[in-house]
Amino acid sequence: MFVDELPTPALVIDADALERNLATMAAALPGARLRPHVKAHKCTALAAEQARHGHRAFTCATPREVVGMAAAGLGDDLLLANEVLDRDRLRAMALCDARVTVAVDSEATVEAAAASGIGEVLIDVNVGLPRCGCRPDDAGRLADLARASGLEVRGVMGYEGHLMIVDDRDERVRRLVDVTGALAAAHAAVGGDVVSTGGTGTFDLHSVATEVQAGSYALMDTAYAKLGLPFEQALSLVCTVVSVTPQWAVCDAGLKSLGMDHGNPGIDGATVWFCSDEHVTFSGLDGLAAGRRVAVRPAHVDPTMALHEVVHLARDGEVVEVWPVDLRGW
Amino acid sequence: MFVDELPTPALVIDADALERNLATMAAALPGARLRPHVKAHKCTALAAEQARHGHRAFTCATPREVVGMAAAGLGDDLLLANEVLDRDRLRAMALCDARVTVAVDSEATVEAAAASGIGEVLIDVNVGLPRCGCRPDDAGRLADLARASGLEVRGVMGYEGHLMIVDDRDERVRRLVDVTGALAAAHAAVGGDVVSTGGTGTFDLHSVATEVQAGSYALMDTAYAKLGLPFEQALSLVCTVVSVTPQWAVCDAGLKSLGMDHGNPGIDGATVWFCSDEHVTFSGLDGLAAGRRVAVRPAHVDPTMALHEVVHLARDGEVVEVWPVDLRGW
Repeated sequence: MFVDELPTPALVIDADALERNLATMAAALPGARLRPHVKAHKCTALAAEQARHGHRAFTCATPREVVGMAAAGLGDDLLLANEVLDRDRLRAMALCDARVTVAVDSEATVEAAAASGIGEVLIDVNVGLPRCGCRPDDAGRLADLARASGLEVRGVMGYEGHLMIVDDRDERVRRLVDVTGALAAAHAAVGGDVVSTGGTGTFDLHSVATEVQAGSYALMDTAYAKLGLPFEQALSLVCTVVSVTPQWAVCDAGLKSLGMDHGNPGIDGATVWFCSDEHVTFSGLDGLAAGRRVAVRPAHVDPTMALHEVVHLARDGEVVEVWPVDLRGW
Repeated sequence: MFVDELPTPALVIDADALERNLATMAAALPGARLRPHVKAHKCTALAAEQARHGHRAFTCATPREVVGMAAAGLGDDLLLANEVLDRDRLRAMALCDARVTVAVDSEATVEAAAASGIGEVLIDVNVGLPRCGCRPDDAGRLADLARASGLEVRGVMGYEGHLMIVDDRDERVRRLVDVTGALAAAHAAVGGDVVSTGGTGTFDLHSVATEVQAGSYALMDTAYAKLGLPFEQALSLVCTVVSVTPQWAVCDAGLKSLGMDHGNPGIDGATVWFCSDEHVTFSGLDGLAAGRRVAVRPAHVDPTMALHEVVHLARDGEVVEVWPVDLRGW
C-alpha cells in the first residue's frame, strides 16, 4: 500500500529519517549509555529498532509499558522512571519476564515496591523540575531504607525536564551545572552503578550520567525541532483536505489525533489557524482542492502517539510496515 | 468495585449528575429537537442513555462513530456532520444497518457521497466559523447538484463553533443573529425538513433550528462550566497522588490522559502548575500523602474521552457500570 492510499488521518514515520535519528544517537551514546524512553512512541516495534541499534535497556513511564516491553521480548533491563503505589501493578511488573527496576522517592514508594516483589530500585532525585524525586540530601536515607527493606539499590535518577526545551544550548549547559551537582551529591550518598538522567534536549551535555533517558530523538516534533539538535522530524500525520475556501482550507486532523499541549501543529508552507475535534483550519498552500493530502507535523509527539492505534513506516511513499501503538494506557 | 479501588488514572462519570444533565436537556429539547453529538463521549452506552431520554437521532463526527452507533442498534437516524471524501468509508456507512445522512459542502463531497451509495445529505453551510460549510448563497446550487446526482437533500446544517465558548449569554444571543440569518437564507434556497445547528453553548438560543447538535451537555468540562449553563460537570479523572513535597504534589494524570487544547485541568481547591506526560503537578490541598486520591476535572471532555479505553459510571462511590469508549478512531 502507498501512503497516498491510507485512510486518514494516518500517522506515518519516514523510515529513512528514523534510521538516521537512531544511527546518530547510537553513535553519540552507544549501547548502554542510552536507555531509550518508550513513552515517546509507545510502540514495541520501534523499541525493537532501538534495540537493533544496540540499546537493550529501556525507560518506561507506566506499568503497562513495562509489561508490554517484557511481553515483546525486550525485557533485558526495564526502568520504570516513575513513582507507582498501585501494588497490583507493581506485582504484575515483578512477575513479568524481565529485569525490572522502579524509581522511588519516598517511604511510601519504597514500602510499596518492597511489598510487591520488586527487586531493584533507583532513588529518584529532584534536580529542579517541580515533579517527582526526593531532595538530594534525603537520597542516602531513602537508599538505606530501601536496602533495609530488602531492595537492591542500583543508583540514582533525576529528570531535568525544565531544561529540555530551553532553546539556547549554552543556557542549557549553564543550567545543567545544578542538575549535575544534585545528581553527583545524591549518587555519592546512595552508591550503586547507575546515574540515569537526561533527555533528547540534553543528550550530549551530561558529565556524571552513566545513561541518558532520551526518547523524542527517534521521531522528534516541532517543539524539539527548534533546538537545533542533530535529529530530524520523522513523524507526520497524513491528512486529507476536506473543505477549501479562497481564504482557508480544512483537513481531517484535529484534537482527537494530535497532542495539543505544545500548541498547534505545523504544516510546511502553511499557517495553521486552529484545531477542532476532527479539523485543522489552515491557509497559505496554493492549488489546494478537496481530496488533496497534506502532512501535518505534531507539536508534541508523545501524546500524539497515544491517540493512535497504529503508525505506518514508509519509504519512498510506500508503506513498508504497520506498527501497533501497543503500549498505550496504564 | 468502589471508585477508591480503581487503578488510576480512571475516568469516572457521576451517574446522578449525568442523569440530571440528560433530564434537563430532554426537558428543554425533547425527542427529535435534540440530535446529541456522540463525538463528545465516543461511547455507545452513554448514547443509549441519551436514547432512553427520548433522543433517537444522533450526530457523529467520524465514519467510525456512524458505523459503531449502527452496530450498537442506535442507527434510527445518524448524521455525519462532517465532510468525508474517503469512498471506502462512505460505502461502509451506506451499507451499515442505519439511516445515514452526511454533510456536503462542495461538488467533490456531493460526488463522493453519490458515488458511494449514500442516500441522504444535508447541505453544510458556513455560519461564521472558518471551517467547513459552503457560502450560504451557494447552498441552493449544491442542493440542486446533489438532487441531480440522485441524493435526497434533507435540509441544511451549520455549526457556530465560534460562539460556543463566548462567556456572555447576551453576546452569544446578539452574535447568533448572523448565524440564524445565514441558516434561514440557505434553508430557503435548499428546502427540506431539517435545519440542524448549535451546541451546548447555544442549546436554548436557536429560533430557526429544527434540531440542536449538542454533545458536551452530558458530561461538561471546565471550559463549558464558565458559561453558567444548567448542566453539571459529571466527568472526572480519578488519580493517585504519587509524590508530595511541602511546596507541591504530583498525581498520575497527564498529557496521555487529558485533552490539553483548553489548557490545564482543574482540581477543586488546588492550583494546577503544569502537566507532563503522566504527571500533574499542583499545590494547595492540605494533608496530602502519597497514595491519596484526587479528582482531576478535564478542561475539554471530548479529546479526554478519546484517550481512554473505558469510562466508569459511579454512584455514591461505587462503580455501577464500566462503559467501553468504543467509538474512538476514524
